[in-house]
Amino acid sequence: MAVSIGEAKALVEKEVQLLSVKEVLLEDALGSVLAEDVEATLDLPNFDNSAMDGYAIRHGDVESNDENQLSLVGEVPAGGFSDHLLEQNETIRIFTGAAVPKGADTVVMQEHVTATDDGIKIDKLPVLGANIRLTGEQIGVGEVALVKGTDLNPSALGFLASFGITKVKVFESPAVSVVITGDELVDRGNELGQGQIYESNSIALISAIKESGIESCSMHRCLDDKDALLKLVKELSDKSDLVIFTGGISVGDYDFVGEVLAELQVNEVFYKVRQKPGGPLYFGKKAGKYYFGLPGNPAAVMSCFYEYVLPALKKMKGSEHVFLPQANLPLKNGFSKNPKKGGFLKGKIHENEVEILDRQSSSMMRSFAKADCLIYVPENKEKFEPGELMEIHYLPQRK
Amino acid sequence: MAVSIGEAKALVEKEVQLLSVKEVLLEDALGSVLAEDVEATLDLPNFDNSAMDGYAIRHGDVESNDENQLSLVGEVPAGGFSDHLLEQNETIRIFTGAAVPKGADTVVMQEHVTATDDGIKIDKLPVLGANIRLTGEQIGVGEVALVKGTDLNPSALGFLASFGITKVKVFESPAVSVVITGDELVDRGNELGQGQIYESNSIALISAIKESGIESCSMHRCLDDKDALLKLVKELSDKSDLVIFTGGISVGDYDFVGEVLAELQVNEVFYKVRQKPGGPLYFGKKAGKYYFGLPGNPAAVMSCFYEYVLPALKKMKGSEHVFLPQANLPLKNGFSKNPKKGGFLKGKIHENEVEILDRQSSSMMRSFAKADCLIYVPENKEKFEPGELMEIHYLPQRK
Repeated sequence: MAVSIGEAKALVEKEVQLLSVKEVLLEDALGSVLAEDVEATLDLPNFDNSAMDGYAIRHGDVESNDENQLSLVGEVPAGGFSDHLLEQNETIRIFTGAAVPKGADTVVMQEHVTATDDGIKIDKLPVLGANIRLTGEQIGVGEVALVKGTDLNPSALGFLASFGITKVKVFESPAVSVVITGDELVDRGNELGQGQIYESNSIALISAIKESGIESCSMHRCLDDKDALLKLVKELSDKSDLVIFTGGISVGDYDFVGEVLAELQVNEVFYKVRQKPGGPLYFGKKAGKYYFGLPGNPAAVMSCFYEYVLPALKKMKGSEHVFLPQANLPLKNGFSKNPKKGGFLKGKIHENEVEILDRQSSSMMRSFAKADCLIYVPENKEKFEPGELMEIHYLPQRK
Repeated sequence: MAVSIGEAKALVEKEVQLLSVKEVLLEDALGSVLAEDVEATLDLPNFDNSAMDGYAIRHGDVESNDENQLSLVGEVPAGGFSDHLLEQNETIRIFTGAAVPKGADTVVMQEHVTATDDGIKIDKLPVLGANIRLTGEQIGVGEVALVKGTDLNPSALGFLASFGITKVKVFESPAVSVVITGDELVDRGNELGQGQIYESNSIALISAIKESGIESCSMHRCLDDKDALLKLVKELSDKSDLVIFTGGISVGDYDFVGEVLAELQVNEVFYKVRQKPGGPLYFGKKAGKYYFGLPGNPAAVMSCFYEYVLPALKKMKGSEHVFLPQANLPLKNGFSKNPKKGGFLKGKIHENEVEILDRQSSSMMRSFAKADCLIYVPENKEKFEPGELMEIHYLPQRK
C-alpha cells in the first residue's frame, strides 16, 4: 500500500536511529552534532576586562574632583596584567580586552580624555561601570554552554574554543554506499550506443552527500542482473550504514532491487509514496542499516534524496532538525495536477513569491539545476492559483 | 571617514575582481562557478523513449479494431533497441527509458492491458502520443544548457553529466590566509596566564571558509609586533589572493595592521564602517590581492566575515549572488540602538517572525552559535517595535 508524503517522512524520522558516539578534536568536528551537553569550563569573560582602548578610573574620584584631573600610574595592554591597586585620583591606561586593575570600576574611552603633563583630564565622564565587561557576563563556569544535539557550525566551534576545549563527543557520521543500476547507462567519456544514455545520477547524489558534510561515500555500478546485485548488496551491507539504489525499483521484469532486499530479509518500512516525482520510492531497514530504493529518473532521484534520504542521514548523525528548512510563500504562477498524489515542484524564490520553474518532468534536471527550493504540493487538491500560499523547502543549493 | 554599511558592501562588490579561468573534471567542480556558457552537445532525450513500463502501439490500430487485440512481436528493455518496424495490429513490450520502436506512436502502461494467448488486449487506450518522451523535449542540441555564472551545485553537475560532458571551465578558487594577531591569545590545550584568553577566532573563520567550499586556507599567528607582522604579510601577499586579519586594526598603541598595510602600499578602499559590531573594519587592495582587517572580538569577526569577506570570496570565484540570501520578516521582540550606526543582530527564525537573541555583544559567541540569520538594522533609526518588518540575511549555518 502506497503511503502519503507525510506518512513516509514520519516513518523515516521514526525508524532511523542515531549512530554511536565518538570523541573528536574540535578542529575535526565541523558539521558534526554534539552527543552531550557541554558545560562552561571557565567564566566568560574569565576576568573583568576593558571593552575599549581608554583609561581605568575610580568613578567617585572624578565625581568629587572639580578639575577632572587624574595621574597616570601605569598601562595594561591586552594580555598583560597590573598588580597595582588603584588609589585616589590615579588612572591606568588600558587597552581593549585587558584586565581591569584592582580598585578601578569604570573605563573612560580614550576619545573622551585630554592628555596633561602627568596624566589626563576627563572631558566626559561615563556612567559608573561603563566599558567594563564583567567576569561571567557571557556565561558562568558550570552553566551549559551548548546542549546535546547542537549542530557544530563554525560559530559553535568558535564558542567552544573560547573555553580552551580541545575535544568533543559527537555522533558518528554515516558511511554511505550508492548503487547505480541500469543496463542503459554509459559512463561519461564513452560513445553512446542505440538506446543508451549517459549515467548522471552518481555525480549528483555523491556531490549532494559530500555537500551535506558526509565524507564516507562509495559509488557502485550494477547491471540489471539479480545475482550480481545480490552479491554487491551483501558486501555493501557489511561496510555501510545506509545504501541508496537508483533505478530497478519499479515492477518491471528487469527491476531487481526490491527482490534482492526481500531475499536478504531487509524489512520494508514503506514501498511507494503517493507523490510525483518519486512514486516508487522504497525504504527498508535491517540490523541498524537502512536502504533507500530510488527511481532512476534524475529529478526524482534528487527530490527523494533531499526530502527523505538526507533527513535519514541527518537523523543518524544526531541532528534534531532533519528536514529541509521551510517557509510559506505565495505562488507566482498557478498549475493543476492529479489530486490523488502530492509531490514536489522545482521552484525559484523571488522577492516575495515563489515561481514554479518550467519542465518539471522527473526525467529533466534542467529545472533542478536552477531551483533554490522544492514546493510541496499536497494530495487531495487539483488546482493551485497564483497568490496561493505554498509550503516551500529550501534546498541546500540556495545561494 | 567611516562609510555606511550599504557603501561598504557596494565597494566590496565593485572592487573585487574575478580570478582566472581553469578547466576541471566535472567530478572536481562542485561549488565552482561556470566561466562559460555550456551548450547541449546532445538532444535530451537523445531518442524518443518510453516514460512507462508498457506496450508500444500504433494508436490508429486500436481505434479501428473492435477487439482491441494486438500481437506481441518483441521486447525492448532499457538500453536495448529494436529494428522491427511496427506493422498493423502489432505491439512491442517496452520498459521505462527504452527507445520507442519505429512505427509506434503511443505507449500503453502495463496496468492498462490484459495478456492474451499471442499478445495483449488493450483495456484502456490513452491519447495519441501518450507516455512517450520526445527527442529534445528537455533541451535541443546547441541550446545553452547552463549560462556562465551558474553555481555548479549537485543538480547542475547531474544535468551536465547527462550530456556526457567530462570537463568544464570554471573560475579559480581563491587562496586565503588568516592572520590572528593579539598578545593576549593562548592556544587551546595550554594554561591561561593572568589577563590571557583562549584564541578562538581561527577555528570559526577557517571552518566558515571551508564550509563555503574554499579548500586553500592557511592560518598564521602573529604577536603585536610590527616588524614580525610586516615580514609575515609580505610572505602571505605572494601566495594568497585574500588575507584576513583579526585584531590589531583599532587605533590603539599595539594595533599595527593598518600601519603595516600602508607601508606595503596596499590601497585602502575603506576603513571604519558605521556599524555595530565591526566598526573598525578595514578593506584594501593591491595588485589583484585583497586585505580585510577585522576587529578581534569573535562575534564582530563572524559578522564581518559573512557580510563582507564571504561576498568578496564569492565574487572572486565567479558567483553572481555574492551576499547572503535575504528575506523580510516581522520582529518578535523590539529593541533600541544608537541611531548613528547600523548593524547586524544575531537572530533566530521562527514560524513567521524573527527573534533577536540574547547577548548581542561583539565579544559573545553564545548567540552566534544558535543564530540562523543576521538581522540588518539600518542607521538613522533608534527604535524597532515588535511586528516591524526587518531585512534578514540567512546564515549558511541555517539548518
